[in-house]
Amino acid sequence: MGSKGFAPEPISGIVEKVEPLSNEPLVNEPSLDEPSLDEPLPGGLGRRLAELLGADRVITDPVRLRTYECDGLTNHRSTPGIVVLPDTAEQIAAIVRECAAAGVPYVARGSGTGLSGGALPRADGVLIVTSRMRRILEVDIPGQRAVVEPGVINLDVTRAVRQYGYYFAPDPSSQQICSVGGNVAENSGGAHCLKYGFTAHHVLSCEVVTPDGEIVELSADGPGYDLLGVFVGAEGTLGITTKITVRLTRLPETVQTLLAAFGSIEAGGAAVSAIIGAGVVPAAIEMMDALSIEAAEAVVRCEYPPGAGAVLIVELDGPEPEVAAQFAQVERLCRDAGAFEIRIAADDAERALIWKGRKSAFAAVGRISPAYIVQDGVIPRTVLPRVLASIDALSAESGVRVANVFHAGDGNLHPLVLFDDAEPGAEQRAEEVSGAILDLCIEHGGSITGEHGVGVDKSRYMPRMFTEADLDTMQMVRCGFDPAGLCNPGKVFPTPRLCGEVPGVRKGPHPYEGKADLF
Amino acid sequence: MGSKGFAPEPISGIVEKVEPLSNEPLVNEPSLDEPSLDEPLPGGLGRRLAELLGADRVITDPVRLRTYECDGLTNHRSTPGIVVLPDTAEQIAAIVRECAAAGVPYVARGSGTGLSGGALPRADGVLIVTSRMRRILEVDIPGQRAVVEPGVINLDVTRAVRQYGYYFAPDPSSQQICSVGGNVAENSGGAHCLKYGFTAHHVLSCEVVTPDGEIVELSADGPGYDLLGVFVGAEGTLGITTKITVRLTRLPETVQTLLAAFGSIEAGGAAVSAIIGAGVVPAAIEMMDALSIEAAEAVVRCEYPPGAGAVLIVELDGPEPEVAAQFAQVERLCRDAGAFEIRIAADDAERALIWKGRKSAFAAVGRISPAYIVQDGVIPRTVLPRVLASIDALSAESGVRVANVFHAGDGNLHPLVLFDDAEPGAEQRAEEVSGAILDLCIEHGGSITGEHGVGVDKSRYMPRMFTEADLDTMQMVRCGFDPAGLCNPGKVFPTPRLCGEVPGVRKGPHPYEGKADLF
Repeated sequence: MGSKGFAPEPISGIVEKVEPLSNEPLVNEPSLDEPSLDEPLPGGLGRRLAELLGADRVITDPVRLRTYECDGLTNHRSTPGIVVLPDTAEQIAAIVRECAAAGVPYVARGSGTGLSGGALPRADGVLIVTSRMRRILEVDIPGQRAVVEPGVINLDVTRAVRQYGYYFAPDPSSQQICSVGGNVAENSGGAHCLKYGFTAHHVLSCEVVTPDGEIVELSADGPGYDLLGVFVGAEGTLGITTKITVRLTRLPETVQTLLAAFGSIEAGGAAVSAIIGAGVVPAAIEMMDALSIEAAEAVVRCEYPPGAGAVLIVELDGPEPEVAAQFAQVERLCRDAGAFEIRIAADDAERALIWKGRKSAFAAVGRISPAYIVQDGVIPRTVLPRVLASIDALSAESGVRVANVFHAGDGNLHPLVLFDDAEPGAEQRAEEVSGAILDLCIEHGGSITGEHGVGVDKSRYMPRMFTEADLDTMQMVRCGFDPAGLCNPGKVFPTPRLCGEVPGVRKGPHPYEGKADLF
Repeated sequence: MGSKGFAPEPISGIVEKVEPLSNEPLVNEPSLDEPSLDEPLPGGLGRRLAELLGADRVITDPVRLRTYECDGLTNHRSTPGIVVLPDTAEQIAAIVRECAAAGVPYVARGSGTGLSGGALPRADGVLIVTSRMRRILEVDIPGQRAVVEPGVINLDVTRAVRQYGYYFAPDPSSQQICSVGGNVAENSGGAHCLKYGFTAHHVLSCEVVTPDGEIVELSADGPGYDLLGVFVGAEGTLGITTKITVRLTRLPETVQTLLAAFGSIEAGGAAVSAIIGAGVVPAAIEMMDALSIEAAEAVVRCEYPPGAGAVLIVELDGPEPEVAAQFAQVERLCRDAGAFEIRIAADDAERALIWKGRKSAFAAVGRISPAYIVQDGVIPRTVLPRVLASIDALSAESGVRVANVFHAGDGNLHPLVLFDDAEPGAEQRAEEVSGAILDLCIEHGGSITGEHGVGVDKSRYMPRMFTEADLDTMQMVRCGFDPAGLCNPGKVFPTPRLCGEVPGVRKGPHPYEGKADLF
């Protein structure tokens, strides 16, 4: 059987049926004077979709289509053939069936904040945008869950339940704009996922439109295969989420945050190892190196201790007595590792100031460099100093500057590779350094992505992490869900490969033929 | 991408390559004078397997084969065609390839303690017993993990690491004899899984032989589909585990246990709701009703408070200050809910006495009834009193006695349905009551199994929980892994169904034909 245990609580006590949080028109809401539905796609598909959804839910105007040409991975662009803006799961199922009948690929998109191109559209395909499906359908406090549509903004879930003492734990840094449907596709995490886990750990069930146009319920509770597990994080290649039941997490009784400044990354890394080794599980433990501190200072004036080679932000939350005891321990371990200054946030305002530098680091790097690549890799915590030294060496050799921001607790490294896009060849050199960093991660037993996903950006690295048999096994699952290969094709997997070519799948005459007695 | 974050620590510090814990001969170790390899199976398979493994690793003697005719679900029996006892993953891969070539089904078996018939063999098939593969290959304390073969006994993992302050958290009540490979297949849990999760939460990666005879690595860390998630708990239908990397959990700083006696199940249920509602996550919270207390008393003299309609065992573990504060809170909540006696374990011996009654309850029921069925269902915690009242009514109507033991924190109910197997029709009446209890679970939004799995026992109930489209989606995955349907067929799914009949799978001409450009 799949994951199990925990039965959902029945709906009682504080249960709200919630109206949409806002009714203001969406930025990209289509006007009624949309140009005629010429035939950008085969099989009269545009016209069929307009009949299904209404012409005002179908975008074909080339200028407006360009709005959707990329997600957060801006160096891959492709204008979609058609954009549709459905309101219901039934409409999405109908769209998928129409695409299947016409043999046209389709891609789902939430807010388009993904960083690996998972929502990159296709010129020969349909882009299904879920931004109109943004109702919080139910808040069930005794059952500690909420039911939301895929277009609901991550932070709006917390906004709807904070008054009852709960929140939605996954906290990608885009949480003010990213959608829960996108979080499901990418299994999104954030700084606090060290303690609280990724989106997969906070989704109880999903209503999903499968590539054959059926609406099914995938659940982590109950018997049978844990299809929810394989669906969450499949980057939209196995179907489209149309409704999500999320677990709500109780707001912690207390939160304590400190900032520790170290002379070097090595000293900061030693503090991280000591804290984790002592059995403390911080809510978050983040590290920034000198260059990313410089960038953050330039923009947000977070006033981190001058001269720091690295700063560490450690946040503990939980029951008051536990936090108090462990916080004292963390402080001591930081000092033992050589912290030359430790600041403890006295209140929420001071806590916000500590986080401000970290949260703005990515954007701030834009101040010290005309352009940059955000890399995302994973290494074992204990090799952090060694890997950072190698990154330094790569940087020195190539003359490409690299700033490092690091979810230190779970080994998730975010090198920011800086370049000047006006300088010929600079982008290519930056790409090379960025790729070499991933190789370092793999060499040290890590991974090519910690939280941004594979998408189109990293599919070429998959064979460095997986054997052909490993990848074939994933493809078998994909072919099970999507034998026609129309659901977000070209993502995750490195090789354009037909289902018929995957060993074990559809080889020769049907192997079940005449073997019903096997069951 | 799949689950992610946490990179494994590199192997350093206390890392042992461990020799097999014991070398005494296995009970079922074959002797060299095994009868000749007649042909119980087609294609000269017996002879081929003997060539591959050596004749002493192949059992064909009908008397010895009968040892394997069932697992813990003793009312389903079937003597296997052949039993093989491989030593390595490569041998298992070779066995699977031989079976595939001969079109013969196969079933993997660990210790055979499963309670849903997941390891029930087939007369026309090969039973692959992993009991010889019982080496702990590696203990990596800094990385908080161990690498084990599938035949390793659950408790032996803890025995190997306890000296370093760690343990293996999943604790099925069979943990002294069940195998880690079996835990993976069934996603096993136990009393402490409320706080610590099931096997799925403690497995970092598995080496697996897929039904096409490849050896692949499935990991929860890293990009691509979370195939480990769908594999763990698939009840042996997607392949055979040959090596497991498990997460080790730090032994808690402190443990506190209390026993609270209530006049009624309702009062005990109210205490459970109050404790969970207060945000306390006990390590375990178990409830027994009057009849199961009576059975336990008759056997182990655990001296539970006389006259109790229900007892609750609550265990807290974790950092000292947190446990102390929450334990006082739990005690108060129990009193508020009407506990008439509360006993607090002063030391490990007293703790063991409290647990003794609970742990022996299943077996003890044998003292008050000649035979019984162990049922396993899940209900939302909050409907516990209502469901137990309905079970009482069922019991009164039918004259069939039912004792209830309950993992109260996660709603996992274990009704023990008592009958006299000497009385004509009694077993059938017990089966009917047992089935009606599952219907109650489903009606109340629960599940047909909490931790024992579906196997052959409950496949007929699957359509009551899932729509046809839901089950088809699971079948698609199964057909992806196992298109020939030879890997543990007849388990989990209700209908003998050909892969070709599953919608979306292999319909008509190959849908990828000529569409390589879609990728």
